[in-house]
Amino acid sequence: MSHGVVPAAAADGARGLLAPVAHGLARLGVSPNVVTVAGLVVTLGGATVLAAERPLAGGLLLLVGTLGDALDGQLARATGSGTRFGAFLDSTLDRVADAALGAAAIWLGHVHGDPVLLLAGIAALVASSLVPYVRAKAESLGLAGAVGTAPREARIALYLIGVLLWAVTGDARAFLVAVIAVAVLGTLTVVERVVHVSRALRSASQHHNEGNR
Amino acid sequence: MSHGVVPAAAADGARGLLAPVAHGLARLGVSPNVVTVAGLVVTLGGATVLAAERPLAGGLLLLVGTLGDALDGQLARATGSGTRFGAFLDSTLDRVADAALGAAAIWLGHVHGDPVLLLAGIAALVASSLVPYVRAKAESLGLAGAVGTAPREARIALYLIGVLLWAVTGDARAFLVAVIAVAVLGTLTVVERVVHVSRALRSASQHHNEGNR
Repeated sequence: MSHGVVPAAAADGARGLLAPVAHGLARLGVSPNVVTVAGLVVTLGGATVLAAERPLAGGLLLLVGTLGDALDGQLARATGSGTRFGAFLDSTLDRVADAALGAAAIWLGHVHGDPVLLLAGIAALVASSLVPYVRAKAESLGLAGAVGTAPREARIALYLIGVLLWAVTGDARAFLVAVIAVAVLGTLTVVERVVHVSRALRSASQHHNEGNR
Repeated sequence: MSHGVVPAAAADGARGLLAPVAHGLARLGVSPNVVTVAGLVVTLGGATVLAAERPLAGGLLLLVGTLGDALDGQLARATGSGTRFGAFLDSTLDRVADAALGAAAIWLGHVHGDPVLLLAGIAALVASSLVPYVRAKAESLGLAGAVGTAPREARIALYLIGVLLWAVTGDARAFLVAVIAVAVLGTLTVVERVVHVSRALRSASQHHNEGNR
């Protein structure tokens, strides 16, 4: 799968780091679904701490939660214990985690009296929910939907960079810029996926008509 | 399709009212996709007017936008001009309309300094995005996903009743209660759909194992 603006080397590096952890959990008999739920709990905790204006602690928790999110798939592959329900649950809880990131930005916009951050948070939340919706809808039509500039890894990486820059520099504008970037690139990705589905359906209907001649 | 808490008679009545409009548009040669986009534009306008604390004008625009939303499907059936892309576009823009309803509640919570309405608006937005996501994901696995207490018609009816009660009584608490109801019943519906998918996959895997014996 393409990771968009996240370099493949970074994604491979994260997977390499997680491999021993996955094998350790496999030996302990931990099920992938437990790791999925634990990753969500850590991410929800991180979003809450971030919303309480503690970007360093919140950012580190979000980083751990995000790595945990990659761990369930690795564990499922390592142990051969992956199920279709496990993959479905993982996808669904990813949407809850994405929503928590948007909600933290909305809440910070509210308490800082910053309507731009609040509206950017709403836009980021909505775009982050539409990107996977359009993909799932495309797949329910038998089409590929995982295309576009900013898939989940890219959106989360941008968001985390903003949080950690805020933590390091003390300047919350780094976070605002990151949330705006997630909103803009997420919206672009929705448009890219809709255009992709439109083209795929038109091409399929042409093939169909040619076949009928 | 089940309409949950919306009585079937009310849904049939709305369709009956729209039938002459659909036939008029069909004679004018208007395409269903144009009606889909126009319905979204009216709904976005209604959400914006509502967010500007004008519940009567906002509520009436939202009512027109929602009826317009039922019109595209009727027009497609009346003219036989429905396409798979039209259905996909309609579903995707429904998600944008749902998000606008949640966003209006969040914004009103912000400007009224009412954190309960703001958080209920976030929860309603997230639940309203998860309900159709879980369905699309279930359908991409070849399962039915359109189950549960509060499908879209029910959530929009609750929300509109809250807006119109606010307009008539002047008491914004009617709207707050409606948004909380959408958040709670929407979350319940997500859980119902996840449980439904879990059972359907377990039952499918049992049949599969029995077949292998």
